[in-house]
Amino acid sequence: MSAINLTSLSKEEFRKFVDSFDTVLADCDGVLWLGNTLIEGSPNVISQLLKIGKRVFYVTNNSSKTREEFVSKCSRLGYPSEKDNVLSTAYLTACYLQDVGFKKKVYVVGSKGITQELDAAGIEHLDVGPDPMCNDMTTLLMNEVQLDSDVGAVVVGFDEHFSFPKMVKAASYLKQPDCAFIGTNTDEVFPTEFPLTVPGTGTFIRAIETCTKREAFKIGKPSPYVCEAIIKRHNVDPKKTIMIGDRCSTDILFGNRCGFKTLLVLTGVTTLEEVHQLRKSNSKENQDLVPNYYIDRLGDMLPLLS
Amino acid sequence: MSAINLTSLSKEEFRKFVDSFDTVLADCDGVLWLGNTLIEGSPNVISQLLKIGKRVFYVTNNSSKTREEFVSKCSRLGYPSEKDNVLSTAYLTACYLQDVGFKKKVYVVGSKGITQELDAAGIEHLDVGPDPMCNDMTTLLMNEVQLDSDVGAVVVGFDEHFSFPKMVKAASYLKQPDCAFIGTNTDEVFPTEFPLTVPGTGTFIRAIETCTKREAFKIGKPSPYVCEAIIKRHNVDPKKTIMIGDRCSTDILFGNRCGFKTLLVLTGVTTLEEVHQLRKSNSKENQDLVPNYYIDRLGDMLPLLS
Repeated sequence: MSAINLTSLSKEEFRKFVDSFDTVLADCDGVLWLGNTLIEGSPNVISQLLKIGKRVFYVTNNSSKTREEFVSKCSRLGYPSEKDNVLSTAYLTACYLQDVGFKKKVYVVGSKGITQELDAAGIEHLDVGPDPMCNDMTTLLMNEVQLDSDVGAVVVGFDEHFSFPKMVKAASYLKQPDCAFIGTNTDEVFPTEFPLTVPGTGTFIRAIETCTKREAFKIGKPSPYVCEAIIKRHNVDPKKTIMIGDRCSTDILFGNRCGFKTLLVLTGVTTLEEVHQLRKSNSKENQDLVPNYYIDRLGDMLPLLS
Repeated sequence: MSAINLTSLSKEEFRKFVDSFDTVLADCDGVLWLGNTLIEGSPNVISQLLKIGKRVFYVTNNSSKTREEFVSKCSRLGYPSEKDNVLSTAYLTACYLQDVGFKKKVYVVGSKGITQELDAAGIEHLDVGPDPMCNDMTTLLMNEVQLDSDVGAVVVGFDEHFSFPKMVKAASYLKQPDCAFIGTNTDEVFPTEFPLTVPGTGTFIRAIETCTKREAFKIGKPSPYVCEAIIKRHNVDPKKTIMIGDRCSTDILFGNRCGFKTLLVLTGVTTLEEVHQLRKSNSKENQDLVPNYYIDRLGDMLPLLS
């Protein structure tokens, strides 16, 4: 892999680069914004890409928002978007269940971001939210944990009410070998502006995997399911697609696995130093994490595009 | 490893076997009882072993009881015991913190079984029990999670109130590289009479390990710390010690690692068929799980001992 600095290209080379794709997949946190803070310059580049005829999709591992909520956030921060451009793991989980012809009920460890997408897809589910706190485990196991025999899948996403009763329920449903086990994404830590370590969806999934000795099917980047769903539902050509992201271990690995071009922006998780280390490494595993291109900030593309 | 059926020994061979040890370490669940149900015949064997001059210790990975509570349970079911004969992971965790000269405060994910043993050892700790449920993550992170700067260790044991706020606290304390990370035991599932899968301590530890990218120091079987503690505190000679257990992956592995003799009883988790599979395997890892001896039930030793 190359890791070419985009701003080092000649005018002619840059034109060739831009002509090499017609579809742009943009990760959100670290590329478009950081939490609720806009990354300056990014909206203009997205608008310009649309103006010159590129299709743009927002691809996020965040499972806690519906597509409508993403569209609202995009509008608020100046990104042109509509529901069909948003590929969130909550939405893609509903797509996956549709793809496999799922007809039963879903037990969701997660938030309304997921259940609303299931509703939109006509898939039945149990409610989310906090479980009532129970002081005594015997009472909990005898009376509170009532399994619904219609449940045929457990979906684990980000859940700020993750708890012992939910773990018991998820693990107990998964005792049935034909109960599907789906995880929205593998990010172990949830990014936050507080000086605290907040466990992410990948931590919740790992916990359920540990006590069930089963492995979840993962929806989000770097799982190739996202690619499959995009090709199937949006008719994209991988050879004419570029993935823009800030994290080599999810975005860039995902893009490289899917045969997309890959562009790393340095406004998020991965640093240029880390990219150089990956390039120098001889392992195939690390080479898969190296982007084709990088740029300090997405906004730096604007003068080149204009 | 051999896996000899104890009842197949000649009178002379059995006498030699009994003379080969002066200390007996007995696992509890699956050997002495199953949950709250006595395993018939076991109390008489333990009594007879004491009568002929053997020292008996009860060694359990269960972290939810104090030694006093174990002694009560033993008495109720007919096992002679006193506090000094009980080696539970809650007690051994307190021993470990004493051994390393720990002087700060402990954040405990667990129950009063652990905090009462810490109290007895004069080690400060925060309270256990359910965290108040918080509907909104921002409020939780801003107001509810207040870290105590005196905390220098996180202990994770069995906690029926395991929850998102506890995960945030444990992981955030563990951001400090000098904060010790201790897990009482690695059992992934908690045994229960209900038809449910109940996550065990190993599952909670794995979750915290996942979001902190740190590995806990494990106290219970098969970790050799138990052996170290017994030798140091009770002056036992590994060559003259036998470990009796029902689970090859904890009890027998532990005993073999420590240089004890090992006896598997078939009243708990591991079956004879599994032992045969392990024996046939060529891997060193599996050979370490094979017991020296086995017997259908501990009670079957009584006629041989008399």
